[in-house]
Amino acid sequence: HINGTRLYQDILKTSRWGQIAQTTGMARLALSDEDKLVRDWFCQSALDIGCQVNVDAMGNIFAVYPGQNMNLAPIAMGSHLDTQPAGGRFDGILGVIGALEVLRTIRESGYQTYAPLAAVNWTNEEGARFTPGCTGSAVWSGHTNHATAHLMSTRDSGSSSTMREELTRIGYLGSLAPDFRSNPLSGHFELHIEQNTRLEHQGKRLGIVEGVQGIKWYNVTCTGERAHAGSTPMGSRADAMVASAKIVAALDKSARQQGAFATVGVLTLERSSSNTVPGHAQFTIDLRHPSPEVLDRMEQEIKSNMDTAMKENPKIMFELDEVWHSPAVRFDSAAVACVAAAAEARATPGAVMRMDSFAGHDSALTATKVPTAMIFVPSRGGISHAPEEYTSKEQCEDGTQALLHSVLAYDSL
Amino acid sequence: HINGTRLYQDILKTSRWGQIAQTTGMARLALSDEDKLVRDWFCQSALDIGCQVNVDAMGNIFAVYPGQNMNLAPIAMGSHLDTQPAGGRFDGILGVIGALEVLRTIRESGYQTYAPLAAVNWTNEEGARFTPGCTGSAVWSGHTNHATAHLMSTRDSGSSSTMREELTRIGYLGSLAPDFRSNPLSGHFELHIEQNTRLEHQGKRLGIVEGVQGIKWYNVTCTGERAHAGSTPMGSRADAMVASAKIVAALDKSARQQGAFATVGVLTLERSSSNTVPGHAQFTIDLRHPSPEVLDRMEQEIKSNMDTAMKENPKIMFELDEVWHSPAVRFDSAAVACVAAAAEARATPGAVMRMDSFAGHDSALTATKVPTAMIFVPSRGGISHAPEEYTSKEQCEDGTQALLHSVLAYDSL
Ligand SMILES: NC(=O)NCCC(=O)O
Ligand SMILES: NC(=O)NCCC(=O)O
Repeated sequence: HINGTRLYQDILKTSRWGQIAQTTGMARLALSDEDKLVRDWFCQSALDIGCQVNVDAMGNIFAVYPGQNMNLAPIAMGSHLDTQPAGGRFDGILGVIGALEVLRTIRESGYQTYAPLAAVNWTNEEGARFTPGCTGSAVWSGHTNHATAHLMSTRDSGSSSTMREELTRIGYLGSLAPDFRSNPLSGHFELHIEQNTRLEHQGKRLGIVEGVQGIKWYNVTCTGERAHAGSTPMGSRADAMVASAKIVAALDKSARQQGAFATVGVLTLERSSSNTVPGHAQFTIDLRHPSPEVLDRMEQEIKSNMDTAMKENPKIMFELDEVWHSPAVRFDSAAVACVAAAAEARATPGAVMRMDSFAGHDSALTATKVPTAMIFVPSRGGISHAPEEYTSKEQCEDGTQALLHSVLAYDSL
Repeated sequence: HINGTRLYQDILKTSRWGQIAQTTGMARLALSDEDKLVRDWFCQSALDIGCQVNVDAMGNIFAVYPGQNMNLAPIAMGSHLDTQPAGGRFDGILGVIGALEVLRTIRESGYQTYAPLAAVNWTNEEGARFTPGCTGSAVWSGHTNHATAHLMSTRDSGSSSTMREELTRIGYLGSLAPDFRSNPLSGHFELHIEQNTRLEHQGKRLGIVEGVQGIKWYNVTCTGERAHAGSTPMGSRADAMVASAKIVAALDKSARQQGAFATVGVLTLERSSSNTVPGHAQFTIDLRHPSPEVLDRMEQEIKSNMDTAMKENPKIMFELDEVWHSPAVRFDSAAVACVAAAAEARATPGAVMRMDSFAGHDSALTATKVPTAMIFVPSRGGISHAPEEYTSKEQCEDGTQALLHSVLAYDSL
């Protein structure tokens, strides 16, 4: 049995690194000073229970706890310790601290697994400071080139640094090759908060996650003509803000019609001023749907709206760059079966449900290389990427207990 | 005759303070280091020709050139040396350097006016770094309280300072009371670029400006709910970006219908991230029209669009704060007559036209206290508040010559 009190205390205690004053919100952006502090704590806690701690060149941390057969690749339990600019205390964090709790429990029980186990912290899952996200797991699983990832630059206001510079600065540019071939795992299990209300609304305690919907990210640049707000007639303007606003409003409408998710999370105007018509706007688009056809249709619609805007006003120019595509994935059925057995044992079959994840996860990347599955616990009100994110001690305990039994079941296989 | 070569050389030479590299654009924000450099140059140039240089507690600079009767308040020629974050080399600057050129010409000719003359640089006309604009002239003319203006804070990213702190930092917190009573002027003449295409399209050389249309500025705050972009269903969102985008698009449409000007020049999302639904947006609105009824109607329309949005989604909250209202003004007919005579003398009656200003100016403020009028010269393509702003040497010379004869005519009156 895992120790729910120790688990929850560690979640709350480590939330001081990045806490937004006077809130339960977290701003622990990837490779920031706060991220270094929680990483140091994680490494030390793993060393304290006899783990070997390996860091790869993406800053991914693998805390390996010995099994009977040290020639086998470890069975990983991974997630992330970074957060959004105003995120919560559980997203990702529960999965990493839960993994550590599983290792502590196994050590205390004296049980020895057949394969080694590993608690893994993947770098920059959130994609908030460096875009796009799931960078550490994307490089490990061969979807992103390691050198390319090192050149990603921060979205910090003011000066910008590269991922490699930031890894070096905080001391997490490890020597291990960031690659599933040189540093293999034999499976990947991830405990995560649901970030939606399905469990809560149906009164279920645990979710058995069978897959993740597709995600596409774009950067958009709109170029118009900077002009005087007081004296440039409306008819001769090329207003990058207005042109962008129309795209944003149309996208929202289209997502509602298609039953998809679409979000413009970031929009910036360069050298902006109240009395200057914006000549330049940049924004992001995040599209999600399980079906690639729907994602394609939405992309076509965005393009056609941009084309129309450019035809209506030839001084307006839109550029749409795809910066991330994480196709929908189905998890390995054997790994899912291990999760299902563990979840039903913990919560009774009536209190669990099978579901897909709406949000993206490192598991969507590892799943392309090793058997992977996920466990969800409820998020109050479905709120996530917000300071109000909340999952109770009992719910965290449910999930961590199911994580323990999932890896034990997989180890037996 | 003014010296057009010296005038134009000074405009180009001083544009190095704040020049945006590799462009003809200027970023000389009010009370920045670059603004200090051009102010220092202006003060020294005025001292060099025997002016007395007075600085008031708003950083307004009055370079007073003696007349026969030193008991009279000076006849001012004023404008501003600050620019937009990406503005041009002429907006405001021509008016101040033109005023200095007039004083130089008078000195060289040995002519002595009856009243003293003054070249004036007003602080923060643009309203880009401190919002709203025309701050120096608004305080001088009693429309804005001096202590309130001192507390205005910069829109600099990162750390913010107050106007008083910045005045002190650059050494322009003068000892003179910033008030038309303690530091009176007997008139105010402003040479400015037109920032529109009326002169250019009608092949005219000079504009006799009879008034300025009304301006209203607002700050808008939209509060929604920060949420996960990948897992928060569209139907349960309160997206501050989408709600704001709809207001922006509707406002643009309404301004076109009303024949007014409306602009959202600044929009910022707090702690934004690609995969977070924005929970908070802030933006500015700039409305212009000669008729107060039209401005009111547009304001009502904005409010009603916001009310509709809030009714449709009770988790969305809009707050609309009026931050500036510069009512439409008519200039003094005697001052306008002096400008008309001077302009016609310079350019022939067929090459001048009477017009109102679309843009706001310090003259709209001084006009409420002393006889005021303005002279416009063409702006190529009507472009302003943009690096491409351009007025030729001959056009600057036309305007400055007309400025000289306007004040001489007014002095004779
Ligand atoms: N689970 C989670 O919040 N991941 C962030 C990546 C995304 O889904 O946008
Ligand atoms: N003339 C000018 O550009 N003034 C700036 C103030 C405004 O009109 O917005």
